[in-house]
Amino acid sequence: MPALRVVLVEPKNEGNIGAVARAMWNFGATDLVLVNPCRVGDEARRRAMHGLAVLEGCKTVDRFEDAVSGAGLVVGTSGIETQNEKRFTRIAITPRDLAKRLGPMRGTAALAFGREDFGLLQQELLACDLLVTIPASKEYPILNVSHAATILLYELFADETPTKRLRLASGLEKEKLHEAFDALLEASAYPSHLRGRTAIMFRRMLGRAVPSTWEFHALMGVLQRATKQIKRLEARR
Amino acid sequence: MPALRVVLVEPKNEGNIGAVARAMWNFGATDLVLVNPCRVGDEARRRAMHGLAVLEGCKTVDRFEDAVSGAGLVVGTSGIETQNEKRFTRIAITPRDLAKRLGPMRGTAALAFGREDFGLLQQELLACDLLVTIPASKEYPILNVSHAATILLYELFADETPTKRLRLASGLEKEKLHEAFDALLEASAYPSHLRGRTAIMFRRMLGRAVPSTWEFHALMGVLQRATKQIKRLEARR
Repeated sequence: MPALRVVLVEPKNEGNIGAVARAMWNFGATDLVLVNPCRVGDEARRRAMHGLAVLEGCKTVDRFEDAVSGAGLVVGTSGIETQNEKRFTRIAITPRDLAKRLGPMRGTAALAFGREDFGLLQQELLACDLLVTIPASKEYPILNVSHAATILLYELFADETPTKRLRLASGLEKEKLHEAFDALLEASAYPSHLRGRTAIMFRRMLGRAVPSTWEFHALMGVLQRATKQIKRLEARR
Repeated sequence: MPALRVVLVEPKNEGNIGAVARAMWNFGATDLVLVNPCRVGDEARRRAMHGLAVLEGCKTVDRFEDAVSGAGLVVGTSGIETQNEKRFTRIAITPRDLAKRLGPMRGTAALAFGREDFGLLQQELLACDLLVTIPASKEYPILNVSHAATILLYELFADETPTKRLRLASGLEKEKLHEAFDALLEASAYPSHLRGRTAIMFRRMLGRAVPSTWEFHALMGVLQRATKQIKRLEARR
């Protein structure tokens, strides 16, 4: 299981921030990052209880990108399948599924929770490798943010998967893979207006597949070889 | 799965009561009983959000026995295994275990949560048929009561699979994708002794990624276009 970072995006209620800090400490997580939060005051501290050190050690940043930097995997959460997600054919997985996928991972995984009212924005969702939705009542599927965080932390704590200790591709390695994918699209004269969403599709699929280092190298080899073959042939013309 | 009744014993914080009502409505439960609670006011109502009807429909009783009367099964919760519990050789089960046990049951199961500070008293624990403990950090295993309730309700929520309405790629489509992958390896002059295991790597990763039909088509397009580009260039030589 990787180390967990909890990212709260523009929380408006300081009580929720404190409650999340408590839940984190309940499940042994300490890395809390707030993106452009409301003021963190007495109510947050009161709700944090013994998780006060988590709250006081939190980082505050202005941008979502800064909050997830350094994380090998970024997990977004969403209360409902929005139109946006459909457009990008995002398949949300359950918290239990997430635990299974993260089980063999190392490094850092960021769990991002959106605003109390709007959730995560489209551009933030696009920066996520995986999307998790908590199965809940169709009548009212929107959980309090600290409740949602508690469920994810609980699922990820409970999971003591008898692991295959596969080494997983790091965030940096994955970025290289995405570059190689883009280079192949370029070399193949893939229609430029489709490249953006095709690249996102690839990112999403890789996020769900959680490739091992070996798989990363193998796939890298395939993409680079195809690109080189095209360039070699072009050079000969 | 039986109908669920949530019993809060002597809650001291009205915010917690509201948060529990919200969590109940998130997971389709409506039967809330308070034993000798603090005053339920604006803060409780505010925290209940759309679970306000659950809060307003709650029953208030003076004694634990009255709160659990009529329930076919009474489940107690405890943050730690106390000496008392050991003395009574009570073995706490996990929330997941509870879900398995309750699954085939009908009737009503009461889930009892104790005071924010003292939990359930010995005599209350003795009136329980089962004891549940949420696996958590040894450093600080005491969850906020609404967090504990959320986890139990989440585990017991009869997941009527809010199914992926996304159409997933069929077996036939996936086979076509593997053929396209093999064709690209071939066109790229990928070393023939490595092709077998590289193809298997791709098959495994796709298996884990569970691509949608749209992702299938997009990936198919990338592979075929790269292959065609190579063949087109070769033909021109």
